[in-house]
Amino acid sequence: MKNFKLTIQYDGTRYNGWQNQKNTNNTIQSKLENVLCRMTGEPIELAASGRTDAGVHAAAQIANFKSNTTLSCAEITAYLNEYLPTDIAVLAVEPAGERFHSRLNASGKTYVYRIWNSAIPNVFARKYLHTVAEPLDLAKMQHAANLLCGTHDFQSFCATKPSKKSTVRTLSQITIEPIGNELRMTFTGNGFLYHMVRILAGTIIEVGQSKRAPTDIPDILAAADRSKAGHLAPAQGLCLQAVYYEKTK
Amino acid sequence: MKNFKLTIQYDGTRYNGWQNQKNTNNTIQSKLENVLCRMTGEPIELAASGRTDAGVHAAAQIANFKSNTTLSCAEITAYLNEYLPTDIAVLAVEPAGERFHSRLNASGKTYVYRIWNSAIPNVFARKYLHTVAEPLDLAKMQHAANLLCGTHDFQSFCATKPSKKSTVRTLSQITIEPIGNELRMTFTGNGFLYHMVRILAGTIIEVGQSKRAPTDIPDILAAADRSKAGHLAPAQGLCLQAVYYEKTK
Repeated sequence: MKNFKLTIQYDGTRYNGWQNQKNTNNTIQSKLENVLCRMTGEPIELAASGRTDAGVHAAAQIANFKSNTTLSCAEITAYLNEYLPTDIAVLAVEPAGERFHSRLNASGKTYVYRIWNSAIPNVFARKYLHTVAEPLDLAKMQHAANLLCGTHDFQSFCATKPSKKSTVRTLSQITIEPIGNELRMTFTGNGFLYHMVRILAGTIIEVGQSKRAPTDIPDILAAADRSKAGHLAPAQGLCLQAVYYEKTK
Repeated sequence: MKNFKLTIQYDGTRYNGWQNQKNTNNTIQSKLENVLCRMTGEPIELAASGRTDAGVHAAAQIANFKSNTTLSCAEITAYLNEYLPTDIAVLAVEPAGERFHSRLNASGKTYVYRIWNSAIPNVFARKYLHTVAEPLDLAKMQHAANLLCGTHDFQSFCATKPSKKSTVRTLSQITIEPIGNELRMTFTGNGFLYHMVRILAGTIIEVGQSKRAPTDIPDILAAADRSKAGHLAPAQGLCLQAVYYEKTK
């Protein structure tokens, strides 16, 4: 069997997230697997670098599947883009080594969280932005972000209850860039827990609103208690920007 | 009565164009007038710089209305943005002179036509792009564009039949800018006939596809015959970018 690596872009607005679920086939995974099955005549299971929540977007999700197809990578790309809905696109199909697994081999990811910081709506990018109309204090937000970087137990920033699984992760960088009325927060780390980026974003937004001090961050981390962190920022502002692999194949 | 000048942004995807029509109230004008009537308690008639076709977008359409309202411009802006659908936004409300008329006083406009020139779809901007998958010859397109600039009878680029009304217009500039896989065509002129930008875009695209030569342009203009020009490019790639007034109020 050959192993294929896919780079996938999607507008998550109308889907119930990446991953297949019992109650619905309205997932990005399901839309892709259906077209891949039709193309190959084989049952196809698509593994992704990680699930994205309902309403979350991806600029470059990575997935892989195994198949006996004789089609070339270019032919697979063309077939997928012809039959996928217009809110899902395959940017690239590449041959991958037999042992490549998009989730198990991922060494890091970058997520972008986009805030529209204006009382005047942004019509064209509205589905990819979370609007916060009142002014935000960028310096305080960057201060909080700096305190979140590094290797920490992120239990306070995780929606699942404490278990034996480690909730220690390393955030190598958080940048907050003003682009016109937009504040674009970029999170890079070696792994992210369930809801982690959205809770980080919600907490940093509350710091920007002066509802919390940047210096509260160490206590929130130390508490290892979800109730100490900020709100879950809405899914629509979040986009999986990149997935990293140390060995690319 | 006070006269108010509005700057309006909209995603035209789900509307039957700007202008009110007998058979439908699914127009951008109608959505705005309804909210303005509710706000002022007066019947409001909104004049725009020009109609945009079904599916065409606007980054900054200009309109004006007269009212006895005592609300401030900031209050009007906030009210409109609260009650308008999310695909229509009011960027600014300004007091205008009594004699200001958004259409009659307009001295020029800029339209942008966005082509996605790739076989790989653009997921996030898909509603604002016209996809042409095959390679386009940018040099030929710019050559054709240069021959279209200046003062000409644009009857060949107009969807309405010849009448006594002049079809002479001046195109001061057409630029074609590659931005990644996008080709962004910008048209600036003193006025545009019905469907004119979309027929210009369709013709320039055909030149880029080598279906026509740039040097055919003078003959197409001289023919004053719609059938000699290229196809009507799809509405979704078109956006009204700016409207100019010599005296701003």
